[in-house]
Amino acid sequence: MKVAIIMGSLSDKPVMGKAADALRELGVGFTAQVISAHRAPALLREAVSALEKEGAEVIIAGAGLAAHLAGVIASLTILPVIGVPIAAGSLGGLDALLSTAQMPKPVPVAAVGVDNGANAGYLACRMLAVKYPELQERLSRFYSRLQEDSKSAKDVVL
Amino acid sequence: MKVAIIMGSLSDKPVMGKAADALRELGVGFTAQVISAHRAPALLREAVSALEKEGAEVIIAGAGLAAHLAGVIASLTILPVIGVPIAAGSLGGLDALLSTAQMPKPVPVAAVGVDNGANAGYLACRMLAVKYPELQERLSRFYSRLQEDSKSAKDVVL
Amino acid sequence: MKVAIIMGSLSDKPVMGKAADALRELGVGFTAQVISAHRAPALLREAVSALEKEGAEVIIAGAGLAAHLAGVIASLTILPVIGVPIAAGSLGGLDALLSTAQMPKPVPVAAVGVDNGANAGYLACRMLAVKYPELQERLSRFYSRLQEDSKSAKDVVL
Amino acid sequence: MKVAIIMGSLSDKPVMGKAADALRELGVGFTAQVISAHRAPALLREAVSALEKEGAEVIIAGAGLAAHLAGVIASLTILPVIGVPIAAGSLGGLDALLSTAQMPKPVPVAAVGVDNGANAGYLACRMLAVKYPELQERLSRFYSRLQEDSKSAKDVVL
Amino acid sequence: MKVAIIMGSLSDKPVMGKAADALRELGVGFTAQVISAHRAPALLREAVSALEKEGAEVIIAGAGLAAHLAGVIASLTILPVIGVPIAAGSLGGLDALLSTAQMPKPVPVAAVGVDNGANAGYLACRMLAVKYPELQERLSRFYSRLQEDSKSAKDVVL
Amino acid sequence: MKVAIIMGSLSDKPVMGKAADALRELGVGFTAQVISAHRAPALLREAVSALEKEGAEVIIAGAGLAAHLAGVIASLTILPVIGVPIAAGSLGGLDALLSTAQMPKPVPVAAVGVDNGANAGYLACRMLAVKYPELQERLSRFYSRLQEDSKSAKDVVL
Amino acid sequence: MKVAIIMGSLSDKPVMGKAADALRELGVGFTAQVISAHRAPALLREAVSALEKEGAEVIIAGAGLAAHLAGVIASLTILPVIGVPIAAGSLGGLDALLSTAQMPKPVPVAAVGVDNGANAGYLACRMLAVKYPELQERLSRFYSRLQEDSKSAKDVVL
Amino acid sequence: MKVAIIMGSLSDKPVMGKAADALRELGVGFTAQVISAHRAPALLREAVSALEKEGAEVIIAGAGLAAHLAGVIASLTILPVIGVPIAAGSLGGLDALLSTAQMPKPVPVAAVGVDNGANAGYLACRMLAVKYPELQERLSRFYSRLQEDSKSAKDVVL
Repeated sequence: MKVAIIMGSLSDKPVMGKAADALRELGVGFTAQVISAHRAPALLREAVSALEKEGAEVIIAGAGLAAHLAGVIASLTILPVIGVPIAAGSLGGLDALLSTAQMPKPVPVAAVGVDNGANAGYLACRMLAVKYPELQERLSRFYSRLQEDSKSAKDVVL
Repeated sequence: MKVAIIMGSLSDKPVMGKAADALRELGVGFTAQVISAHRAPALLREAVSALEKEGAEVIIAGAGLAAHLAGVIASLTILPVIGVPIAAGSLGGLDALLSTAQMPKPVPVAAVGVDNGANAGYLACRMLAVKYPELQERLSRFYSRLQEDSKSAKDVVL
Repeated sequence: MKVAIIMGSLSDKPVMGKAADALRELGVGFTAQVISAHRAPALLREAVSALEKEGAEVIIAGAGLAAHLAGVIASLTILPVIGVPIAAGSLGGLDALLSTAQMPKPVPVAAVGVDNGANAGYLACRMLAVKYPELQERLSRFYSRLQEDSKSAKDVVL
Repeated sequence: MKVAIIMGSLSDKPVMGKAADALRELGVGFTAQVISAHRAPALLREAVSALEKEGAEVIIAGAGLAAHLAGVIASLTILPVIGVPIAAGSLGGLDALLSTAQMPKPVPVAAVGVDNGANAGYLACRMLAVKYPELQERLSRFYSRLQEDSKSAKDVVL
Repeated sequence: MKVAIIMGSLSDKPVMGKAADALRELGVGFTAQVISAHRAPALLREAVSALEKEGAEVIIAGAGLAAHLAGVIASLTILPVIGVPIAAGSLGGLDALLSTAQMPKPVPVAAVGVDNGANAGYLACRMLAVKYPELQERLSRFYSRLQEDSKSAKDVVL
Repeated sequence: MKVAIIMGSLSDKPVMGKAADALRELGVGFTAQVISAHRAPALLREAVSALEKEGAEVIIAGAGLAAHLAGVIASLTILPVIGVPIAAGSLGGLDALLSTAQMPKPVPVAAVGVDNGANAGYLACRMLAVKYPELQERLSRFYSRLQEDSKSAKDVVL
Repeated sequence: MKVAIIMGSLSDKPVMGKAADALRELGVGFTAQVISAHRAPALLREAVSALEKEGAEVIIAGAGLAAHLAGVIASLTILPVIGVPIAAGSLGGLDALLSTAQMPKPVPVAAVGVDNGANAGYLACRMLAVKYPELQERLSRFYSRLQEDSKSAKDVVL
Repeated sequence: MKVAIIMGSLSDKPVMGKAADALRELGVGFTAQVISAHRAPALLREAVSALEKEGAEVIIAGAGLAAHLAGVIASLTILPVIGVPIAAGSLGGLDALLSTAQMPKPVPVAAVGVDNGANAGYLACRMLAVKYPELQERLSRFYSRLQEDSKSAKDVVL
């Protein structure tokens, strides 16, 4: 296990499942949990502490509305934390994006796009590839293949 | 002491000073501290716990940017928490307003307007007046006087 | 009866019903009425005045669009007023959130999140728990149970 | 007196002075008062009632933040009410624009642009010109002259 | 005929039909046309000129997107022009609201809320009631009845 | 072939098909390709270079989210580039509009409205009509006809 | 003269002067006028008609607030029209950007970024370069030089 | 050298200097360059390619307006790219934030808050600490000290 996925609510599962898909696609181990920063703050502290001990190297946190989850986790650990703002209410996720990205210094969150669980997974892979050469290679091949696939898929009739 | 004021950064002092002014104006005791939810999460937990023991009855929390302070406090206590979104960056405080108001159920924050420390103070007084008859009376007189003052101040020449 | 719920339109019922659910869950009595600040201002004044006489201690007001209801009520009483911005038109409730939260001093409204009737109910309970020890205890148990439930619900497979 | 100007705060004077200028320019009589919808609701009701008796035919209301003033007045009278949203806080007046324009049916406010007191004055003139032929003529000449002035002012060197 | 309704596109019909309903409800005559400010500028000029000759006293214009229709009409006539911003694209009508309300001086448009054709109709009635005593009376009765109806409709069970 | 259409994703096809329809309607030849600026940057460079050699005179680029496609193309060529912001996520295309329009000097993109592929096609025709007199004539007839059609379509019953 | 610059107000001069600078830099002739779409609609029609006769090939229009200028011009001519949204009020130019870009089909405006007069000038050059080979060459040299200058300016010490 | 800082314009230096300060504070080597994605795309490609060869492990990219820089770099490398949205125009950096964060899958950018160069530096340190134990230790001490400093700085008099 290298990546830990935490989501604020079970309803975030479809978005966060895309992060899991990306990690699987690139052969990176992960765990997943549902813990709300607001409903279960003590549980979250224990979980983050346990993840550090179990050797998690990157944490991906997804939440909607006043999405504090990623920021709270970033205040509890020195691991890099990726935040996935989720469009959970009527404001299209702008609330979650601002709550995730606008963190005060020196406690950063790495925000990806609204509902973009997949990019959180790929970003975690890029971070880990700095350390793991074999992942770096897999990632290189993945992006080369993407370029190839793009070539054969560029024709369209309008 | 009935109200505890906590601000995320010393730069929030001018806004939060207005909350203090309102409380003083209505004779409500308060304490004030600077504690960042992100830079000092353990300190914040201790402080909230201490405030509960010392008998604080309402907490006012002011913060800017991804303003998690009020929400994090609300997750640590069952006291009513008033959040003051502060316009700290380039987005006019819309980030802080959404981060403060859009809390998930069942962990509410009572959001007042951007940079409106004064209203946080008056709202704390209204909450406490439910319990304290003498404050209720002072508050009644305060609003009656306001209505009187308005009468004598309504003339203007354009 | 301790809490009075007022909504601006019958169409706000699904959102405001969540406030009622929260109050029932914690054993707090309430009344509910539909009164528009704009269509029936005199009726609203009478209703607020009657509520004060009947001993209401907190008012929850829900409205959409240019959501003046909570603010108008706050100008008629010194009771604490909780505003629920409702996403009634095409702007996702941003109009209602700003109309509810951005009140001028010294007439505060305690704004909760857009469409978050439930949080209005829980916030009312927190306010009343300052005065009523037995409610404070129920609230403590409620949040402890929440933490417990979170523990058993944290597993998820992605 | 045909037009009544009401502003929510003395700080709105510079913007509302432009409405007065426009009315003076077209020879329309007006009165001006400072009355907050929230700080002095009873005073506002009396004032609106008095204005109706004194024969006011259009009301111009200017306010910032959660700008309820125009809407509250519109709920108290059947006179046409023009609302001037004022950029009073850090949100550029978007809060006031939405609070002014997004009124529920059937209680309309005629919103002009943010801080555009002048246009409120000219709009009042257009409304009154429907009834008063001599004003209609003055207005016609005013706009013809505008077109003439534009002709002589169109040269510019970049 | 006292009111002229113009809409920018046939797709605006459902919204503008609410304006017609309001006018009918209060016994005010109206005409309706579909003319785009951008697709048929010459036709629009002719139409506005014809409407003036036929004695139109208020113009209601509804358009979406970069909703120039009301503003362009206001530049062609001295009649009061009411603009209805319509939520026609993916931005919820914020584009139309700003394009309608933010007119430069001295060419005002009276903006009502997004998609609020009904309020445009009621606002036209208020404008015309300044001149027509019998309409003023009908309007008074209409709002009194509204207040009465509110009384009998205020009960709700949550 | 005079116009080259490039879209960032196959899901942009319905919007970009409207650009194709407009070009066909006015007899302007075009090609169409799907190439993502981010997934296939080298392929995009080759494609732009090839389009220049094949004599493309205007490029239309459609993309959603952080819509960099039009801007990246504009940095690779001196041909005029029209950008179509596409509403691909939960933010209604505001992200794509800002990413398309707010280009730094001196690398302009000609932004049209969100999802308005049709206008991109018509704008390309206007650009080309500067050079091609026969297209200028077709365009003139097209807009004259539009004006005519508007005349016969202006009647509506509300 | 190939490009015609029109601005809605003399206060737009600093922004539109940047368009003139860009045109001068690339040797493209231009004229400039101040004409408001709303204050002088007839004058604008005459001016656009005169510009067409004098052989203008591209029109650049700059305006703030409810920036209708570019759109109104686009409805009067088949020339390509570039719109420069100007940040004239308190909303940062978002009003002008939406009023400029969100044009209905089939009357496009080529919107550049807020206050980006320079890009309007460069975009006009790109459009004209389609027709004029010597301008195409100048433009190519300009962008090559830009790339060269970037090379020598890339060092920075932080 | 482990981190490469690239900014789109020399005017971004004050914000990006904060990233450099953070890296220096934690003893992480870096280089800095000014390269615009739009003015010098070929130069950017060469620079990114050179940085990869020289062993850069994280890239920090800062840009304003339609901030494509971070996204374009992310399309050219598999290194993790941190984007700093810069408030360069009149929209408060909302344009840059959306252009930076809303990247399409599978090309992520790690967005930090608007103008928050410091957090970009700290985030780069967190990423590198996954690989470098001595940096991990320095980072741990840095955050512990922060918590200590917070303790002694929490007193404030209002």
